[in-house]
Amino acid sequence: ADIIKKGTIKSSGVLKGRYPIDTITQNIEEAMSNADIILVVTPAFAHKSIARLIAPYLTQEQIILLNPGRTFGSAEFKNAIEKEIGKIPIFVAETQTLLFTSRQLNKNKVEILKIKDTVDFCAFPEKDTFFIYDTLQDVFPQLNPVEDYLEVSLRNIGMLLHPTLGLMNAGFMDIGKEFKFYKEGATFHVCEVLEQVQAEVNLIFKKLGMQHFNFCEWAKKSYGINAKCIHDAIQNIIPYQDISAPKELISRYFIEDVPTGLVPIASLAKFLGVKTPTIDSIIHLTSILCGTKFKDTGRNFSGLNLNDFISRRIKVHEFGIHDEELKKAHV
Amino acid sequence: ADIIKKGTIKSSGVLKGRYPIDTITQNIEEAMSNADIILVVTPAFAHKSIARLIAPYLTQEQIILLNPGRTFGSAEFKNAIEKEIGKIPIFVAETQTLLFTSRQLNKNKVEILKIKDTVDFCAFPEKDTFFIYDTLQDVFPQLNPVEDYLEVSLRNIGMLLHPTLGLMNAGFMDIGKEFKFYKEGATFHVCEVLEQVQAEVNLIFKKLGMQHFNFCEWAKKSYGINAKCIHDAIQNIIPYQDISAPKELISRYFIEDVPTGLVPIASLAKFLGVKTPTIDSIIHLTSILCGTKFKDTGRNFSGLNLNDFISRRIKVHEFGIHDEELKKAHV
Repeated sequence: ADIIKKGTIKSSGVLKGRYPIDTITQNIEEAMSNADIILVVTPAFAHKSIARLIAPYLTQEQIILLNPGRTFGSAEFKNAIEKEIGKIPIFVAETQTLLFTSRQLNKNKVEILKIKDTVDFCAFPEKDTFFIYDTLQDVFPQLNPVEDYLEVSLRNIGMLLHPTLGLMNAGFMDIGKEFKFYKEGATFHVCEVLEQVQAEVNLIFKKLGMQHFNFCEWAKKSYGINAKCIHDAIQNIIPYQDISAPKELISRYFIEDVPTGLVPIASLAKFLGVKTPTIDSIIHLTSILCGTKFKDTGRNFSGLNLNDFISRRIKVHEFGIHDEELKKAHV
Repeated sequence: ADIIKKGTIKSSGVLKGRYPIDTITQNIEEAMSNADIILVVTPAFAHKSIARLIAPYLTQEQIILLNPGRTFGSAEFKNAIEKEIGKIPIFVAETQTLLFTSRQLNKNKVEILKIKDTVDFCAFPEKDTFFIYDTLQDVFPQLNPVEDYLEVSLRNIGMLLHPTLGLMNAGFMDIGKEFKFYKEGATFHVCEVLEQVQAEVNLIFKKLGMQHFNFCEWAKKSYGINAKCIHDAIQNIIPYQDISAPKELISRYFIEDVPTGLVPIASLAKFLGVKTPTIDSIIHLTSILCGTKFKDTGRNFSGLNLNDFISRRIKVHEFGIHDEELKKAHV
């Protein structure tokens, strides 16, 4: 309400100032008209419904950027649009993570704690990435175009950490007891389960010819930490130490990260003939806790129309056939 | 050491006095000689090794009573003995629960908090039950002979509660934080998982023609509580409210109740063609937490030589053929 009255957002932190907003509306048609770039900054479980909502108002060459997409965000988004209105020449891309670390203050105020130096992004299909980059780089110079969609979409750290740690601390979250999610919840033995989840993800990555998914390497790159195991790494990331657990069980740690992280990974594994008993167990048990069959409601690979994309990828990896040759051969 | 020096156990509580012990020894041969009744009062995961240890010293007509057997205790015990020394005429039975509620005090002292009024027991094979009862009823008048082995062996409450509640509170147990296992750990949503475990057990019971496995009914019978769901029941059992969680993750809640409770149930389900995804998930994740593949180390149905026993049972249930007729017909 305040933001509509004032027509501006007042920002503090690393980005200071009063920023006027042209249009603030809940009317989708109004929001969509004359928009060159459509930024979707919502929990990933909302992407599909947003795709359906905006589909009727899309016009040619509009760019949609999911910030972030989680796993297979753009693929799901594009697929949902095409189911509504058929193929039209629009562009859909996703970032690997949020651009801003920020929080909402009261009224029309926000605090920007950090603007990330670089944020990987990729379009789906991948060939659209550089067209989008041309348009976006003036507005968001932090965006780093990545050629490989799977690199952006599958390296999902939230999916690795949140559901498992939430499950192993479900009781305390459910009664709303204060505790530090990582410092107290990510114990040595609990992190053994994270190691198994990571190992299963790596079986998939191997099939796809991707480099290892390795939390320790990510922690080194992101926080400069040298650790030998996930437990070590988590317990040494300073900004993690003070993060409190959600005070309710049914939180984004489950309802976002399971259907848009673990479900696409597990169903992709099934398509690839890779067994993921640990990930399957976590999906199954968090589904009971949340009263939602995430396997059915989530981003199931079989409904994403990605079979050809992945099959081509495996052929490139296994037989060393290049993408261009495959396209020529209409495989 | 004290108990050896004094040669007695001093008991307080509902059973007061000083009880002399004829022989206190860690020498199996010595312990076994001239024993009419061999009481095995250990965690159930030790039964198999005890069976192997005592097998060479067994003599005809000795009675072995597992107190308690957990699931398929006698079957495993008898099987392990026969693997060592072949078939000999001995008798193996199991109780459904411990006879005494007690705790060890210092030195040679124990406190008996409660002697149960009645404790169900059954032999394996079932036909031995009444012979054993004849011998035992003078010593343990509380023993209640039950005709159906599955009734004693499959109605395992610990298996229902302990592994699931432990898993959902693994973080806090692992860092050794004090909390009330049931009062704080068995929250509403966590108990939804218990409901699923119970539902899966009931699919098995139905196949076997057994009456429902129902925690609420058990709570009514045992504690006089009227409850509509497991959460309600647990939160209303007064003696449960003060029970603290184990201060270490790798406790009997996992290392006893998974291999001698959930593993036999899940593997029996597999034999029956019943799906148990929730139980399987709990076995899988607690196995990772404990660094032990309980599916391999536990009481797997396929290694218990029970196929004929269960198949006969199903035929009796499904076709109404009586056991005696089946035996005559050599089915």
